[in-house]
Amino acid sequence: MKTTIKENIENKEENTANIKSELKFLNYDKKFKFENGVTIDELTIAYTTNGHLNVNKENAILICHAFTGDADVLSWWSNFVGKKKAIDTDKYFVICSNVLGGCSGTTGPSSKKPNSNSYYGTDFPTFTIKDIVKVQKILIDYLGIKKLYCVIGGSMGGMQALQWTATYPNMMEKAIIIASSMSHSPMQIALNEIARQAITEDTEWYGGKYYGMSSPDRGLALARMLGHITYMSEEYMKQKFGRKRKKALKYFTPSFEVENYLHYNGEKFTARFDANSFLYLTKAMDFFDVKDEIKKIKTRKNIELEKVLIISFISDWLYPSTQSAEIVLAYQNSNIDTTFHEIESNYGHDAFLLKNTEQTKYIKKFLNK
Amino acid sequence: MKTTIKENIENKEENTANIKSELKFLNYDKKFKFENGVTIDELTIAYTTNGHLNVNKENAILICHAFTGDADVLSWWSNFVGKKKAIDTDKYFVICSNVLGGCSGTTGPSSKKPNSNSYYGTDFPTFTIKDIVKVQKILIDYLGIKKLYCVIGGSMGGMQALQWTATYPNMMEKAIIIASSMSHSPMQIALNEIARQAITEDTEWYGGKYYGMSSPDRGLALARMLGHITYMSEEYMKQKFGRKRKKALKYFTPSFEVENYLHYNGEKFTARFDANSFLYLTKAMDFFDVKDEIKKIKTRKNIELEKVLIISFISDWLYPSTQSAEIVLAYQNSNIDTTFHEIESNYGHDAFLLKNTEQTKYIKKFLNK
Repeated sequence: MKTTIKENIENKEENTANIKSELKFLNYDKKFKFENGVTIDELTIAYTTNGHLNVNKENAILICHAFTGDADVLSWWSNFVGKKKAIDTDKYFVICSNVLGGCSGTTGPSSKKPNSNSYYGTDFPTFTIKDIVKVQKILIDYLGIKKLYCVIGGSMGGMQALQWTATYPNMMEKAIIIASSMSHSPMQIALNEIARQAITEDTEWYGGKYYGMSSPDRGLALARMLGHITYMSEEYMKQKFGRKRKKALKYFTPSFEVENYLHYNGEKFTARFDANSFLYLTKAMDFFDVKDEIKKIKTRKNIELEKVLIISFISDWLYPSTQSAEIVLAYQNSNIDTTFHEIESNYGHDAFLLKNTEQTKYIKKFLNK
Repeated sequence: MKTTIKENIENKEENTANIKSELKFLNYDKKFKFENGVTIDELTIAYTTNGHLNVNKENAILICHAFTGDADVLSWWSNFVGKKKAIDTDKYFVICSNVLGGCSGTTGPSSKKPNSNSYYGTDFPTFTIKDIVKVQKILIDYLGIKKLYCVIGGSMGGMQALQWTATYPNMMEKAIIIASSMSHSPMQIALNEIARQAITEDTEWYGGKYYGMSSPDRGLALARMLGHITYMSEEYMKQKFGRKRKKALKYFTPSFEVENYLHYNGEKFTARFDANSFLYLTKAMDFFDVKDEIKKIKTRKNIELEKVLIISFISDWLYPSTQSAEIVLAYQNSNIDTTFHEIESNYGHDAFLLKNTEQTKYIKKFLNK
């Protein structure tokens, strides 16, 4: 049992390459206006769908991916999505799109500017979680869906689900928000800033204009290494690594297994993620603050939002249960039927991605009418 | 009250410059042999003394400084050391020396090699906490002290106090170990490795041979920024910073007060600390594992060590109370009279440096005959 879940963590990223849903692209050729007022002329949205939309178009579920995830939901959340899984693709039409500003198909800083050979880089407009959700709304409209049955997300995906309930409570019935927060604490902001600083201080970042040249891989790897520490609980690290040694090449290279794990994953990450996307997305998370908007849901008319499910994990110190408890209070204050489960787990923040019978049970039960 | 302690944290580093005991130097001109067998021909030990050694030389207390501390104990621990303080310099002769490998007077990587114009840099022998303690023993012998009344240290200073009880239980009566650990957990190792990586990936580190050229200040500042996160509790960060904003110069510069605090302290740190010392000392901490030696104290003869006091702080997540509880068990297993206090405090790991009536009371009581 332990071993299975361990392997699961280790194989999480490999899976990304192995399981692939067909990636589709929506080319939105109208102007897209960001929350800050800036517009861009073209927008591509990369997405996948799994399952079939029923005749009434009432069985659609939007899954919002976490920070470094992508549209291929089966690659990173097959523990919960698929035939006969908690989010059953025999019953539901499951949509997942790469976020605005990401680097897996949807327009972002690593995209080329329209009618140009140059990349956006840090010329890309600064964007918010609200902008990310606005782009998802374009996709949902395009698919002809008037009302989503549910919007689901963990971590940064949970922020998007929160924003959906605040902005479009009239076009969704349910929401599931896992291991997330209505706004980052100073601790979360501080950790993100260390990661950003690692990237922007890399001499190969070149103010974000590194495309076609080198790339700030050392900074990006370092940022990811720090991320991995925050995704695990101390207890889990003890079980997984303890003080197991590793033969060091030099004195200041990894001497312990845990260091080796971080280096391996840090370096691997640079092959699949863009440093500027890392910067923009962490900023969007840090600026995110949906508390007041959740409070105002009760003043909205024609609300279709009926109930929300909040899940947290006891050993998650990056998005602690206290933040989920605050979400519960905010929804209850807006008279939304809210269910909250804090799940016993040793795996820290990563727990939301891993096989878990409790999480499976709660999601399944919540989605069933 | 809150404000006082807040200011206390903010002024902690300024204090270093303001209060100065006379820094003395012991030039040890015999060969010093490291635990790894390597020798160096010269060794300078920088130290301070406060108070007066009594005729029987039985009132000496050695205080071991933490990672980035120095010999000037009144600059960083005046909350507990001084006239009529918990460690009363009217009663005790208080000795504090800069650690081997440090950068505040004692020989380390930023020292020049004997009879040479070149600096050690990464040619400096790799050393352990045991080596640090062995150097302190040279100083204590030089001062003609046969038995220390007490050895006291917090954090990395606690590791030295632990090592003293393991190596020289025949020449000390008491020990106080605060917010420390018998060995680093994988989480502690992992956090240190991120910090080291920030330094060694700085293009101005030059494999450690940067002296007389530039210095890896950006990497060192980043390492320190991460350190500061781990020294505070989440709750304290919420109180101190919340989500208070700061006018950002550019999008990817600090937008929140907490980011500003980290940048300010990171940059300030580079003026007083050497990057190679940072690397060597964190490695010494990571390799430190005194568990088996503490167990073996009971097999030693002519033990003078009578009792130890262990203190931890409830909100310290870097050196959690569980690690202090393990120390207690280890000493009890060696039949040493052991007292343990977990102190309620909001300030995280930094708590051991701050004014605290409980810590004052426990230290005072423990030192009184």
